[in-house]
Amino acid sequence: MTDAVRIGLLGRGTVGGAFHELVAERAGAVEAAAGRRPEIAGVLRRADGDFDQILERSEIVVELIGGTEPARDYVLRALRAGRHVVTANKQLIAQFGDELFDVAREAGVQLRFEAAVAGAVPVIRVIQESLAATEITKVFGIVNGTTNFILSEMASTGAEYADVLRRAQELGYAEADPSDDVEGADAAAKMAILARLAFGTPVALADVAYQGITEIQPEDIAYAKELGLSLKLLGVAERRDGGISVRVFPCFLYSGHPLAPVEGPFNAVMVEAPAITEVTMSGPGAGGIETASAVLGDVVSIISGKAPVHATHERLEIVRDIPSAFYLHLEVADRPGVLAQIADVLGRNEVSVRSVVQRGLGNDARLVMVMHEGPESRFFAALEEIATLDFLRAEPRAIRVIEEEFA
Amino acid sequence: MTDAVRIGLLGRGTVGGAFHELVAERAGAVEAAAGRRPEIAGVLRRADGDFDQILERSEIVVELIGGTEPARDYVLRALRAGRHVVTANKQLIAQFGDELFDVAREAGVQLRFEAAVAGAVPVIRVIQESLAATEITKVFGIVNGTTNFILSEMASTGAEYADVLRRAQELGYAEADPSDDVEGADAAAKMAILARLAFGTPVALADVAYQGITEIQPEDIAYAKELGLSLKLLGVAERRDGGISVRVFPCFLYSGHPLAPVEGPFNAVMVEAPAITEVTMSGPGAGGIETASAVLGDVVSIISGKAPVHATHERLEIVRDIPSAFYLHLEVADRPGVLAQIADVLGRNEVSVRSVVQRGLGNDARLVMVMHEGPESRFFAALEEIATLDFLRAEPRAIRVIEEEFA
Repeated sequence: MTDAVRIGLLGRGTVGGAFHELVAERAGAVEAAAGRRPEIAGVLRRADGDFDQILERSEIVVELIGGTEPARDYVLRALRAGRHVVTANKQLIAQFGDELFDVAREAGVQLRFEAAVAGAVPVIRVIQESLAATEITKVFGIVNGTTNFILSEMASTGAEYADVLRRAQELGYAEADPSDDVEGADAAAKMAILARLAFGTPVALADVAYQGITEIQPEDIAYAKELGLSLKLLGVAERRDGGISVRVFPCFLYSGHPLAPVEGPFNAVMVEAPAITEVTMSGPGAGGIETASAVLGDVVSIISGKAPVHATHERLEIVRDIPSAFYLHLEVADRPGVLAQIADVLGRNEVSVRSVVQRGLGNDARLVMVMHEGPESRFFAALEEIATLDFLRAEPRAIRVIEEEFA
Repeated sequence: MTDAVRIGLLGRGTVGGAFHELVAERAGAVEAAAGRRPEIAGVLRRADGDFDQILERSEIVVELIGGTEPARDYVLRALRAGRHVVTANKQLIAQFGDELFDVAREAGVQLRFEAAVAGAVPVIRVIQESLAATEITKVFGIVNGTTNFILSEMASTGAEYADVLRRAQELGYAEADPSDDVEGADAAAKMAILARLAFGTPVALADVAYQGITEIQPEDIAYAKELGLSLKLLGVAERRDGGISVRVFPCFLYSGHPLAPVEGPFNAVMVEAPAITEVTMSGPGAGGIETASAVLGDVVSIISGKAPVHATHERLEIVRDIPSAFYLHLEVADRPGVLAQIADVLGRNEVSVRSVVQRGLGNDARLVMVMHEGPESRFFAALEEIATLDFLRAEPRAIRVIEEEFA
């Protein structure tokens, strides 16, 4: 019988607890799959345990504390001491990935982080290993389960954002302070990680333009439904004009789109490359046991083999003016010439209209327009002009639309 | 600069040719990802090349000949000579997997075969690596692109099976002799492989009960459409009653099912386990470049690490009487008492009816029934009795239905 693989566990919250139990439960299965049995050699809790002692006793350090400090310090010390590290910490990888990858490479140890993006959906492994030799052109999808749950609920119930958020918090799908999720920062960190791995280029958090779902109105979702559209918070990382673009934004999808049916707290990621057309992966985005399961998968990989390299191949520029199509919601005074003036502003800015729905509302009218794809800069220039028109009764609302329809 | 990794390529048909080109095109990317550059050291064509010479020169042997002999002989010789092997050959793995895994283990080399199932969709890697420590309860999906294309076309055009098959052959989605695909044998071989890996038990081809799509009538698809059902050729491998069941059969899915929207020559595989709920992966099922890309992914993994173990953990029994729901199509004489007699047969066999649609047709009537789930043995006993009733005007047709509806 071979020695057990000793694991130092940092953090024992929801995920840490689930991981601790899973190791006990699946130790035999890990041994069967990887040749050695894992065991927890020590646990560092906030108020309890000595990091150096745990490090001394461990071959692999599993970091499930979250946040950047002291997680970063512990992970760096573990790597430098020649320990493999597994983490589920997206902020740590998104903000300090390059530093950590360098240190791991120098120390000749593995740093794995499958659980940092899309929970149990093995998108990191697929990008880093299955597609390591593939020229990926685009990675996009739904990488935040909280916001997808909220948008699905808003669409099916017609309820206001604030009410649905409260329900999500009651069900445990949203945290007490939900800002990281609903403002898009969580998805932005995940997209920074995916873009880095897919394109082999450094991507800083500041490179990711993001926007959340806090401004979404039920009536936008209702109008869009009539047009066959459903709303998702989308992360998109793509090669463009010799550089890359990495963004997170709420977006309407036509019903034929493969991501349109993804409902509730699920994640789904699509990878496009000439050699594979597109591969889609979906599953539950988070949850203690799903995340713990992804962490254990990384532990199995460490026990049975060598690491992916995380090399940076080149430094690609961030491209910002992307062609997009937009949904535009306007409340205007119901009087002659209004539509003509708006059409004039759009026309001068070379923004082309695809469809218009107009509805009366007392003395006012609502105008819902969907544009054809064009440079965002032009649309935003038009929007700025429109916002100054005197017949406007409320702030205009613009939401991106993905035009592609699938067979 | 490190030495190149020399690859011996066996077979230079569509996939072999695409692989040869891909290696040249992506050699730099492979080096960046895995640390060493691949190069083709020799190619064995049917009428050209000496296997022993190629073996001598290679570190990795890539088998893209297909079929069982001489592929099996070459792969065994390569493994015994200490060479890693990558193959896209599903028949080889399904029929001789256990022998090949043993030889690879003894020789301390890797045997990889991602391209054998679902082309560029990395289902083998995910099951063997990401989910190595997970107790998988079920693996199911659409693993044959030819039949999925045919069924999609039949549904959208209303055309007959034979006409759509001809079109699929013209488009290159079906082979000149399509029997392996349309009779379900191809999907059965893939499901045997997936079941073996998911459950760690030997699964012989003879253990897989399979049925193809050659008997499917356009009117069944049309009736089912009215009931909100779409038809797929499904492979299902699942744990059941302490054993396993592995089957391939045409099956109606309710429109909320995650596999219902998978159209055309695509594959999609779902993996269920308590720790991950369900993970779905989909993408193009075959094609030269997609398959070559999966093969190159395996080469990258060999260059950068150690192998998954392919251990057999236990020998699970094959369970055959599975609970299923059925669609039943009957052409009967339109006279009093017919429905009562059929209902009586079903009732005595404890088969419970979920919905009935009856339509007149001259002197005859069509009766389309969907049953609730129950043991297949009971349904088939009822069907045998029904087939003997004197008012029957044609052979009854039964097709399975997946009842679960998803949120």
